[in-house]
Amino acid sequence: MKLVTALYQGKEMVGLLGELEDKVLLVKHVERKCFDSKVFADTLLICLQNGEQFLKDMNSLIQWVENNQLEGELYIPLKDVKLLAPIPKPAKNIFCVGKNYAEHAIEMGSKDDIPEHVMIFTKAPTTVIGPNEQILLHKEVTEQLDYEGELAVVIGKKGRGIKKEEAFDYVFGYTILNDITARDLQKKHKQFFIGKSLDNSAPMGPWIVTKDAIKNPNHLQVQTMVNGEVRQDSNTEHFIFPIEEVISVLSKGMTLEPGDIIATGTPAGVGKGFKPPRFLKAGDKIDIKVENIGVLTNIVGESSK
Amino acid sequence: MKLVTALYQGKEMVGLLGELEDKVLLVKHVERKCFDSKVFADTLLICLQNGEQFLKDMNSLIQWVENNQLEGELYIPLKDVKLLAPIPKPAKNIFCVGKNYAEHAIEMGSKDDIPEHVMIFTKAPTTVIGPNEQILLHKEVTEQLDYEGELAVVIGKKGRGIKKEEAFDYVFGYTILNDITARDLQKKHKQFFIGKSLDNSAPMGPWIVTKDAIKNPNHLQVQTMVNGEVRQDSNTEHFIFPIEEVISVLSKGMTLEPGDIIATGTPAGVGKGFKPPRFLKAGDKIDIKVENIGVLTNIVGESSK
Repeated sequence: MKLVTALYQGKEMVGLLGELEDKVLLVKHVERKCFDSKVFADTLLICLQNGEQFLKDMNSLIQWVENNQLEGELYIPLKDVKLLAPIPKPAKNIFCVGKNYAEHAIEMGSKDDIPEHVMIFTKAPTTVIGPNEQILLHKEVTEQLDYEGELAVVIGKKGRGIKKEEAFDYVFGYTILNDITARDLQKKHKQFFIGKSLDNSAPMGPWIVTKDAIKNPNHLQVQTMVNGEVRQDSNTEHFIFPIEEVISVLSKGMTLEPGDIIATGTPAGVGKGFKPPRFLKAGDKIDIKVENIGVLTNIVGESSK
Repeated sequence: MKLVTALYQGKEMVGLLGELEDKVLLVKHVERKCFDSKVFADTLLICLQNGEQFLKDMNSLIQWVENNQLEGELYIPLKDVKLLAPIPKPAKNIFCVGKNYAEHAIEMGSKDDIPEHVMIFTKAPTTVIGPNEQILLHKEVTEQLDYEGELAVVIGKKGRGIKKEEAFDYVFGYTILNDITARDLQKKHKQFFIGKSLDNSAPMGPWIVTKDAIKNPNHLQVQTMVNGEVRQDSNTEHFIFPIEEVISVLSKGMTLEPGDIIATGTPAGVGKGFKPPRFLKAGDKIDIKVENIGVLTNIVGESSK
C-alpha cells in the first residue's frame, strides 16, 4: 500500500496511490459511500496515531472498491492533486542516524569517524517539505549546502524498551528523505542540529510504503542523482546499524510514538566528499531513488522565499 | 502575569496564577461570564499560537474580574488543581543551548570546552513532565543521571532571521527547566540527543512568567538544590551567549514558532562536576529556583513506571 498526503481543492487529504502510480483514491471522498460514516482522520499523522484500525479500514475500503468495480469511477488522476510530504507537520523533530555507512563516515573524515555506537541528531519539523517543493539555498547563512539521500522509517506503534527481535512490529512503513545539510554550520556549531535544521531542509516523500510491501528494508538500493548524474549509489545492506538496532537503541529509555520518523543515514557520495567539494547551487535538481519505494525529486531554489 | 496549565476535574486547563501564588483563575471557567462566548483555546500552546490576541483577552479578563470585584468568587485554591508543565506536549523538540556558562564548560572538561559558537541540541517532547511529577532513574539504561537547572525562554511570535536588537519581540515569557541528562549516554553516543531524551527528563514549570514581568532575563539568579543542598548557584549574567544572541543564531535559517521552548544552558555545579561525581539516586529531591520566576520541584523515582 502506498499512502500519500495530497492537496486537493485547497484541502490536505489522505490518499491511496493506484498500482500504476498514476491515480489516487482520496479516502475522505469515498468513506461515506463505503462506510456510511466518517471513518478516517483528517491527516495521515492522526490516522497513524489511531493505530491498527487505520490499516483495517484502508483494507476494507480497497476491498469494497474492488468488489464494486469502482476503480475507474473513484480514483482521480495523480496530476490533479499536489503531493505534500506524507507527514507535512511531524509532532516532533525527525530522528536522524549520523554516519550509518562506513564509506560515508570515511569521506567525511577518516576511518576514525566510523561510529562505534548509534549517533542520533534531529531536524526540526519546520524543515519538512514535499516532493517537488523548493529546497532553499540560504545563501545568507551557508556556502556549503549539501544533499543526503536516505531511507526513512515511519513508526506505527508506541513503545519503549523495544527489543531488536520485535522492532519491525513498531514500524508502519518507509519513505525517502533528503537530509539537506549546511556543512559549514554543522562544523561550526559542533552539535549537528543548527546545520541540519534550515527551513526546507527535509524534503520527504513522495509517499509512505507500508511495511508489508518491503521484503527487507535492510537490503534496498539507495541512489542520489544531481542533475541526472549519479552521486550516491549504495544499498541499505551496508548499514553499520540496521533498522532494528536503531529502533532498539533509540527506544531504550525514550518512548517512540506513531508518526515518528527516523532517517537512517546517508551513503558515500555527498557533495562534501568530492575533491574539490561539490555543494548545491540554485537550479540543481536532486532525485533520490530508493528501491521499491520510488523517487523523491526537488529543485534548489533561490535563497529566500 | 503567571500562566499555568492545570489539571482540574480530569481536564487540562489554562489558568492565571493569583498574585500570592495560592489560587488560580481557570480561564475556561470564567470566559463566558466575561465575554459571553468562548474566547480561549483549550491549551496554552494553542493560545500562544493564536498570537497577541491571547494576551489582550487575558488582560480584558483580569480587568473585568477586578472591576467587578470577583476575585474571591472566581479564583480557586491552587491546591485544588494539579499543575502540569505549562506546555505539556510541545509541538517540536525543545531547543537546548549546550555549555552556555564558562564555569560549567570547564567542569565538564577543560577551558577547551568553552564554545566559540552557540551549540544547540534537542530534547524530544516525550521528555516533558510537570512540577512534582516523577523523574525516572532509568537504571537499566544509565548509571549517571544528572540534573541541570536552567532558565527557559518561550517563544511567542513566528520569525526567521531575527536580529539581536528585536529578539525580545519574539519572546512570550520564561519558565524553569531541568535538563536531566544521562552522562554515560551523552558521552557514548557523541551527539547529545540520546543522553538528553530519556522519558521524563525535562521537568518544566511551574508556570510561564510573561516577559513584561522580567526586567532583564540576562540577569537572573539560578540555583539548584538537591535534597536541600545548594549545588548550582549562578546568574544568567554569566551566559556566554545571551538570550538575544541565541534567538538570532537559531533563527538565522530556521523559523521559530510560538510555543517553541529554548533552554538556555546550565551553570557549574552539576553532579558530574564533583570529584567524585554525585549522580542522582532514587528519592532525591531537586529544587530549581530562578529569580522572579519561582521554584520547580521534582523527585527522582524508581526506574520504571
